[in-house]
Amino acid sequence: MTIRYGVIGTGALGGFYGGMLAKAGQEVHFLFRSDFEHVRKHGLQVDSVNGDFHLAEVNAYHNPPEMPLCDVVLVCMKTTGNHHLPEMIKPMLHPKSVVVLLQNGLGLEEDLSAQLPGVVLAGGLAFICSNKIGPGHIHHLDYGKLIIGSYNVPDQGILEQLVSDFQLAGIHSELSPDLKFARWQKLVWNIPFNGMTVVLNTTTDRLMANEQTRELSKELMLEVIHGANACGVPLKESLAQQMIDMTIKMKPYAPSMKLDYDHRRAMEIEYIYSKPIQTALDAGFVMTKVSMLEKQLRFIQAHRLDK
Amino acid sequence: MTIRYGVIGTGALGGFYGGMLAKAGQEVHFLFRSDFEHVRKHGLQVDSVNGDFHLAEVNAYHNPPEMPLCDVVLVCMKTTGNHHLPEMIKPMLHPKSVVVLLQNGLGLEEDLSAQLPGVVLAGGLAFICSNKIGPGHIHHLDYGKLIIGSYNVPDQGILEQLVSDFQLAGIHSELSPDLKFARWQKLVWNIPFNGMTVVLNTTTDRLMANEQTRELSKELMLEVIHGANACGVPLKESLAQQMIDMTIKMKPYAPSMKLDYDHRRAMEIEYIYSKPIQTALDAGFVMTKVSMLEKQLRFIQAHRLDK
Repeated sequence: MTIRYGVIGTGALGGFYGGMLAKAGQEVHFLFRSDFEHVRKHGLQVDSVNGDFHLAEVNAYHNPPEMPLCDVVLVCMKTTGNHHLPEMIKPMLHPKSVVVLLQNGLGLEEDLSAQLPGVVLAGGLAFICSNKIGPGHIHHLDYGKLIIGSYNVPDQGILEQLVSDFQLAGIHSELSPDLKFARWQKLVWNIPFNGMTVVLNTTTDRLMANEQTRELSKELMLEVIHGANACGVPLKESLAQQMIDMTIKMKPYAPSMKLDYDHRRAMEIEYIYSKPIQTALDAGFVMTKVSMLEKQLRFIQAHRLDK
Repeated sequence: MTIRYGVIGTGALGGFYGGMLAKAGQEVHFLFRSDFEHVRKHGLQVDSVNGDFHLAEVNAYHNPPEMPLCDVVLVCMKTTGNHHLPEMIKPMLHPKSVVVLLQNGLGLEEDLSAQLPGVVLAGGLAFICSNKIGPGHIHHLDYGKLIIGSYNVPDQGILEQLVSDFQLAGIHSELSPDLKFARWQKLVWNIPFNGMTVVLNTTTDRLMANEQTRELSKELMLEVIHGANACGVPLKESLAQQMIDMTIKMKPYAPSMKLDYDHRRAMEIEYIYSKPIQTALDAGFVMTKVSMLEKQLRFIQAHRLDK
């Protein structure tokens, strides 16, 4: 089976993962917005810790209706634009197409299936440090692991093929038997560090060097773990200390929400904070500290976009 | 009975309250640090909403041992310097002297009596907007009410005299029968607004205009009220909404901790946050959100003083 790929949102994630697939010989069709003209003329440039490469000929499109039908659509854009997703992906879908939401947070698949009844969905979690540093120009700094999980894919075969394609393209990729588990697990890291680096205008290394914020980060992690537990997701408390230890060893890092804040872009508060808070609440658990962080972020967002 | 007054820390508070007493004819002795030479030459200037005034001749001192014995010592400095208090006030005390701590927070009297066994103490809470705007130059913007309460004063007569002196000097002043109650009550306002204006780098009006932070402010207030309740202090939950309504009506305001932050001075985290948190904890109540705010402030303080 050969998969025809579509990539929506060709930035730090889409440019890297789509670029790696295309470089490995897969058929990949990219949707671009502002970078369209540049990529048509100059191709796609990926500077990676694993070796730089350039794709001179890219299947680049500017409008969704121009794109061919795709077997797998990798959604790599920010969740802040998800209300545009249905109109963007609809023209690319055939009855067996699988849409993979390579996005952070909770409730993404639920929202999209409500908007596009019958759509076949999977979720993906990218463990990667990558930035777009110019038009059609991606800088991959570190890591890259990809966890894929089915939401309502009837035939796992296509996801196995997808994972295999990624592996052949040089990306460490795994199929998770439990997407909900994988999404909550990633939130255990994302919730403390996305929010705290924004509210305290700092980077992960400083949060880890300070005893107070190291402790608070762990408290937030434990609250997320307990929230997950309330929702029937069996994350262990020991995960918190493991993630703290891992973060202490990491290079100074500004999570994606901090970059959004620095560049005065909308922050992904809805799916990384509000949905998990509401989901845990529906299961009877109040995430007190996470809610406080959410409110602080909402205030910052409102005043940041004002100026 | 005539009281001889000493004022320690002649800034926004000490300059105003001490200045008003001196203007009304009381004998007041002021301890100055950096402003000493200026005040000796030019006196003390108070610009007040209630009328400006100038004291040409001020009993100004530069070193505590030069000061006379005083009946009442008004401590008006920031709590961040309280470790210097014993050596500063000792030379001014006779056996019946009363030291009045005109400072915010909890545990101040406990700490000072541990350092100076036998010292006679009262606490005071100032509801005032006042700033020092230059050497020996105070700007009184609004309010001014003073609540005084005994900690271990054997004879209430001297506190009644003190309140009477303040009243005659034009300051709305009251004796509280319960200092602990008065300290906790003021914390209900101070805890949310001092910390939140620093962490979110803003003013009270903006916190009130935003639904998220208005809600969070009230949640923090309720947590302080419940902490007080656990310590046997019968504050009512309805106080939270009253204070929110009052704050909505206030002019845009930067609390003292925000001014300390802006001027890169140490913040009064210990007595406004850590002590109340510990006191409630000892009584079996965890102030979760207040603790989170404390940790954020500790981080900001550490990095602010670094730079």
